[in-house]
Amino acid sequence: MKILITSGGTTEQIDSVRGITNHSTGKLGKEMAEHFLKAGHQVSLVTTKAAVKPNASEQLSIYHITNVASLIQTLKPLVENHDVLIHCMAVSDYTPVYMTDLEEVKETTDIETLLKKSNQETKISSSSDVQVLFLKKTPKVISMVKEWNPNIQLIGFKLLVDVTEDQLISVAKDSLTKNKADYIVANDLATISADSHKAFLVSKDEVLSLATKSEIAETLLKKVTYYD
Amino acid sequence: MKILITSGGTTEQIDSVRGITNHSTGKLGKEMAEHFLKAGHQVSLVTTKAAVKPNASEQLSIYHITNVASLIQTLKPLVENHDVLIHCMAVSDYTPVYMTDLEEVKETTDIETLLKKSNQETKISSSSDVQVLFLKKTPKVISMVKEWNPNIQLIGFKLLVDVTEDQLISVAKDSLTKNKADYIVANDLATISADSHKAFLVSKDEVLSLATKSEIAETLLKKVTYYD
Repeated sequence: MKILITSGGTTEQIDSVRGITNHSTGKLGKEMAEHFLKAGHQVSLVTTKAAVKPNASEQLSIYHITNVASLIQTLKPLVENHDVLIHCMAVSDYTPVYMTDLEEVKETTDIETLLKKSNQETKISSSSDVQVLFLKKTPKVISMVKEWNPNIQLIGFKLLVDVTEDQLISVAKDSLTKNKADYIVANDLATISADSHKAFLVSKDEVLSLATKSEIAETLLKKVTYYD
Repeated sequence: MKILITSGGTTEQIDSVRGITNHSTGKLGKEMAEHFLKAGHQVSLVTTKAAVKPNASEQLSIYHITNVASLIQTLKPLVENHDVLIHCMAVSDYTPVYMTDLEEVKETTDIETLLKKSNQETKISSSSDVQVLFLKKTPKVISMVKEWNPNIQLIGFKLLVDVTEDQLISVAKDSLTKNKADYIVANDLATISADSHKAFLVSKDEVLSLATKSEIAETLLKKVTYYD
């Protein structure tokens, strides 16, 4: 099968020297890629420069992206010709629109007008004591996947922080329906460490409790290749 | 001599999954460390997880930091017992104070009150279309160095983007005086590439024009060990 995996975290530029980064080592995506490669599948990995990667292999293609815009551009044609998408990447929810000092914000009667501005300078000056950064929502990549290819098996990820198991599963079920995903892996940053990676694999019919990155990869491998 | 080098870029957390990062590969600091190690000096390198590093060596100690607060904590005792600080690190000018949606900003009469708020949630919700991030200036680490140790030789760095050579040199001279630095390496992101790294080495008495990372390291080595 042709397996598409995303890993790492996107960075949205503020200016030419600074950006907002979603932290992600890429370890889970690497583990995932290694399991599918070992089972003889062809893997395309869409990832970032900073993320850890599997060893080179003839069956593995790697694509580098930076921000949400470049992710969409790279992912769309790949989604169209793959059988499965495992979307582990930590994708930025917001992207910078305009950064200014507190004075301009105070002096502006209709704050909405600031959302139509943009920074002309390549490196925003750092003279004022307080700066205000306006950010707008990025397009939800996961919601586009089934529009690009209704036949792809879609595995999404939900990362929350310090919530109850019920909340985690409930958020995963919402995402399952909203994004027409086949599985959602729901995990909590508070229960992820070097050795363990607690997660729930949530589908329409079941909720499986998993304990390590390797177990998540192994279980997904079985699930998505079941009819292969 | 005991040489202290900083490299890489700091990250200021927005919440537990996102942060603002100053981009820096760590290549210049690595080159610097390698030149001083080769010349028989003892090197302490203060850097980030993501930055590239020299090979392990008995003469090399590595210290990892993340944000400006941890940089100051790690750097102060080191500055006190080193002969030279080469401060290549890209340090965040601003750190997040409070992130909220546009509605709260619009409804707040005195915007300054928002600067006294902080986010209680570990992962800031991503439901609103626009978010507003308030940031405050971080302490200027370079300005503290000579207070911590008046006898240390201080080499600072100034990175600007797409300015004239005159502007670059003028900004470097200001920094030299303000921070009581011995040398400022002034460079422009627009003239840095994989093979070349144009820079001016500015001191009270002279301005040298340099062309590569290796040349910058070699020249600094000669300058700071001249009286050794």
